[in-house]
Amino acid sequence: LAHANLPDLVALDRVDYTGIDLVFCCLPHGTTQAVIAKLPMHVRVVDLSADFRLFDTATYAQWYGHAHQAEGLQKEAIYGLTELHRAQIKSARLVANPGCYPTCSLLPLIPLVKAGLIETKDIVIDAKSGVTGAGRSAKQANLFSEISDGFSAYGVGKHRHMPEIEQELSRVACSDIQVRFTPHLVPMNRGMLSTIYVSLKGCTINDIRQALEAAYAGESFVKLMPKGVAPATQQVRGTNNCFINVFEDRIPGKAVLVSVIDNLCKGASGQAVQNMNVMLGFGEELGLPKVAMFP
Amino acid sequence: LAHANLPDLVALDRVDYTGIDLVFCCLPHGTTQAVIAKLPMHVRVVDLSADFRLFDTATYAQWYGHAHQAEGLQKEAIYGLTELHRAQIKSARLVANPGCYPTCSLLPLIPLVKAGLIETKDIVIDAKSGVTGAGRSAKQANLFSEISDGFSAYGVGKHRHMPEIEQELSRVACSDIQVRFTPHLVPMNRGMLSTIYVSLKGCTINDIRQALEAAYAGESFVKLMPKGVAPATQQVRGTNNCFINVFEDRIPGKAVLVSVIDNLCKGASGQAVQNMNVMLGFGEELGLPKVAMFP
Amino acid sequence: LAHANLPDLVALDRVDYTGIDLVFCCLPHGTTQAVIAKLPMHVRVVDLSADFRLFDTATYAQWYGHAHQAEGLQKEAIYGLTELHRAQIKSARLVANPGCYPTCSLLPLIPLVKAGLIETKDIVIDAKSGVTGAGRSAKQANLFSEISDGFSAYGVGKHRHMPEIEQELSRVACSDIQVRFTPHLVPMNRGMLSTIYVSLKGCTINDIRQALEAAYAGESFVKLMPKGVAPATQQVRGTNNCFINVFEDRIPGKAVLVSVIDNLCKGASGQAVQNMNVMLGFGEELGLPKVAMFP
Amino acid sequence: LAHANLPDLVALDRVDYTGIDLVFCCLPHGTTQAVIAKLPMHVRVVDLSADFRLFDTATYAQWYGHAHQAEGLQKEAIYGLTELHRAQIKSARLVANPGCYPTCSLLPLIPLVKAGLIETKDIVIDAKSGVTGAGRSAKQANLFSEISDGFSAYGVGKHRHMPEIEQELSRVACSDIQVRFTPHLVPMNRGMLSTIYVSLKGCTINDIRQALEAAYAGESFVKLMPKGVAPATQQVRGTNNCFINVFEDRIPGKAVLVSVIDNLCKGASGQAVQNMNVMLGFGEELGLPKVAMFP
Repeated sequence: LAHANLPDLVALDRVDYTGIDLVFCCLPHGTTQAVIAKLPMHVRVVDLSADFRLFDTATYAQWYGHAHQAEGLQKEAIYGLTELHRAQIKSARLVANPGCYPTCSLLPLIPLVKAGLIETKDIVIDAKSGVTGAGRSAKQANLFSEISDGFSAYGVGKHRHMPEIEQELSRVACSDIQVRFTPHLVPMNRGMLSTIYVSLKGCTINDIRQALEAAYAGESFVKLMPKGVAPATQQVRGTNNCFINVFEDRIPGKAVLVSVIDNLCKGASGQAVQNMNVMLGFGEELGLPKVAMFP
Repeated sequence: LAHANLPDLVALDRVDYTGIDLVFCCLPHGTTQAVIAKLPMHVRVVDLSADFRLFDTATYAQWYGHAHQAEGLQKEAIYGLTELHRAQIKSARLVANPGCYPTCSLLPLIPLVKAGLIETKDIVIDAKSGVTGAGRSAKQANLFSEISDGFSAYGVGKHRHMPEIEQELSRVACSDIQVRFTPHLVPMNRGMLSTIYVSLKGCTINDIRQALEAAYAGESFVKLMPKGVAPATQQVRGTNNCFINVFEDRIPGKAVLVSVIDNLCKGASGQAVQNMNVMLGFGEELGLPKVAMFP
Repeated sequence: LAHANLPDLVALDRVDYTGIDLVFCCLPHGTTQAVIAKLPMHVRVVDLSADFRLFDTATYAQWYGHAHQAEGLQKEAIYGLTELHRAQIKSARLVANPGCYPTCSLLPLIPLVKAGLIETKDIVIDAKSGVTGAGRSAKQANLFSEISDGFSAYGVGKHRHMPEIEQELSRVACSDIQVRFTPHLVPMNRGMLSTIYVSLKGCTINDIRQALEAAYAGESFVKLMPKGVAPATQQVRGTNNCFINVFEDRIPGKAVLVSVIDNLCKGASGQAVQNMNVMLGFGEELGLPKVAMFP
Repeated sequence: LAHANLPDLVALDRVDYTGIDLVFCCLPHGTTQAVIAKLPMHVRVVDLSADFRLFDTATYAQWYGHAHQAEGLQKEAIYGLTELHRAQIKSARLVANPGCYPTCSLLPLIPLVKAGLIETKDIVIDAKSGVTGAGRSAKQANLFSEISDGFSAYGVGKHRHMPEIEQELSRVACSDIQVRFTPHLVPMNRGMLSTIYVSLKGCTINDIRQALEAAYAGESFVKLMPKGVAPATQQVRGTNNCFINVFEDRIPGKAVLVSVIDNLCKGASGQAVQNMNVMLGFGEELGLPKVAMFP
């Protein structure tokens, strides 16, 4: 960005908020609650941290290791999965932008849970992310030589995006849902793919297709792929898109959902801009690429 | 290999088999049955194709699209997962070297199915392979620019390694087992990781650990990793090792197995050499690296 | 592009050119001359092949192995390095879009040769390209497993972009210039870097900086980087930019130029669009990204 | 290495050197001189740092920013480019294992400088290294996301391996030689390639080939490739080999040398083992792979 003519960075306590309608808050988890609590009331917020994603502050405390520091604000925060909560986002003051894994897993699952088409006790989410999901801090584990030409699982059985996924599925189902979720690290910069194993609840694969088709018919960024085509992260690189497909298993009554996003776009800043567009009444696609950079 | 002093390649019909004890057969699927049928009886064979892996020739015909061409030979073929069938391999004339996905999936599962520790109706295998698994033929899908910096699923619900996995699990269980299996393509040269979701059958995670520990205590190449350590393909790159670990899920009664191999070694030629060593009475580790090339 | 609403592809001999102002011609080298010769006169052309880049048709025949098939057209073709030939491009009917290596090498060299600041007998261009430079045809040499985790030289001493570089340098110098040029293949999708070794002709490194600064002061896409900063292809990924820097050697009177482009943008289709913008009187930046996709 | 049965690490001041013939010293530059000075006299040393590579301690001080701390030891240190100084290495107490860039550049150049076949004022070395050359410390610049899918130059005009290259070339030429040298970073784990531009001194390309052929005829690890074949780092991955080739330039009297090594083997620990083998009278190839791991 060295050659772009950007305004200077200003320290947080010297910002003049006059004339500022909305801020994107991109601070580390745990530091955001205090910062947002001090913002003037006229400033609307899209927060990219995890600080306001869990509306049950006890769950927050359990997964993040400390008490919530802005419980009042939490009550008004809207979970910013745009396609799911668009109406509330429109008038929200504080939008908690979802994690990348939850975005990629919830988009295919929500319409099916909502319509009661799949068993809710039996969901396995096997998720794979590019390395940018780990951020830019200088840790040995993220060095090129550690990651290149290799593949690994991490956080098996206990990743922080689990409660976020479960919160939104449970709200839609009006009952507690627990999922099995394993994240993996792919030697690529950006991209995320979820392979989701579900059991059909007395319906066919075509019912699943129709439910997904119907749910996302009017959406700009979420698409059901043609029958049989396998989603690949390359197809959404650099875009705010989420591509989904569903495959029949050989075992009757079982199906596999596959979804892909760019973890830095629909999984982070892209969805943040999408939410801003909704909040400020802009066209929802404004500033958001839809054609993938391939290769 | 240009600088190694290797003997000249000889056309198949001009080979003098005098003094040859064993051949490795590395032909494409479907072409091997006829070739092996013509070999002199004193020559023992390790076949790296899929042609003799399925002992039910009807299953073979269904998955490979043509009738089996050497049904007699099939009857004497031994499935070459060394750790499982070592005794029979020792005296076999024809060993069908296992596929990479079956090797990586069966090694963690077999001891648990054998001991009746997991439900057999509920096994999900989410597998990921480096690009060398696709061979060296010049296809657009395998170009660097198609694969680099991306991740995709393929063959969802219908990969040819499925029946191989099911055959061996069913034999051990003495009942028909079907698994859910999805392969994925990782932008790396070599390496394979299986994430396997299982339900415990009235046992604890420690029982699982003990069963794996006991099964592989005397093995050179298969290791259970220390509690909590996530397997990564880098740990076995260039070796004939298979590293396994098991993790407790938050949902009671559920567990996740993770296993890694080098798909070109334990998943192909390494296991072929291991089988030759067993067949000819050599030390089983002969010629097989155990220290990974990292990075 | 599956989800974009694009018009259908039409066979070449069925195109209705009414209302078409300009075509991009992206055919293989050697096939374009005949095709363009048949286009209606009102249609202007940006040709991305090498077919019209060399104005000496004998040189063309020597490097491409067959006689030129549209010598008349060649006479009116303008070499489309926008920054160098903008005035002529504006009114050209046929623009020969430059190769990626020539673009990356000429942009830093042209102002220095023009100003007589460097020796012209002593230019060494060591160039490195991402794999997309080799196109998308299914060749073994371009497979992921051949290229990943490796680096190689190719076409040493005889690459077809040589005469293109020499033609433009010689025109500017008004004397014949020959360069030493070696291309290399980098295991990355897109990006190109040239390291150029020059001898100063009685001037200082600051004279070089000033000449480059002056030459590109009014340009949108070509930038001299701050002193000491090493150009990297990541800085221009997905953009039409060319970033240049110059470094003093320890040996007095010697300097090193380093330039980077995205070979698919400024090195191919980006520059083609830039030329179209100039030809049709649009803003030169129209449709061309300037902020890199990093990572 | 977790599964190898290795002895425990022991703190430096608690080592019992009885029965130890030789140590490999792998400490950071600047810390080794003091450590080696304290070793018992019967212990021979291969030092992998840069601390004893430059026999002129003033040059050392200039490039490494502090005075040499063991000038006495420096006098007896032998520069460990095995093929060049084998006789002295055999009886040396302290061998300074060469840097990776010097190894890769000196092996093709030394025989030509020695035979007076090339101009010594006109050598350009354009070198490219995999990321492991930067070590394993947790720096942002070495993160996967910074390096993957990109290529950059660094240390232009002032890399610390320059004086090492010049020292050895000058010794062989019996006159001061300065080279132009630019290192680059390739997005791969291991591998190094040098492209070297030289001017012939009244000889032909065949004289160059013969000189290289003759120099390395009896060597295990250094090979001249067949005419026209381009060296690639993949050909030497995991081996202690150095492959070299030479190409004629179109400009009469000019040639291009290309050499490849694995920077972690012949460029570091492999050559250290090779030197140990020479020092202790073992077979020089002992423990050193010669067949590349490809892919």
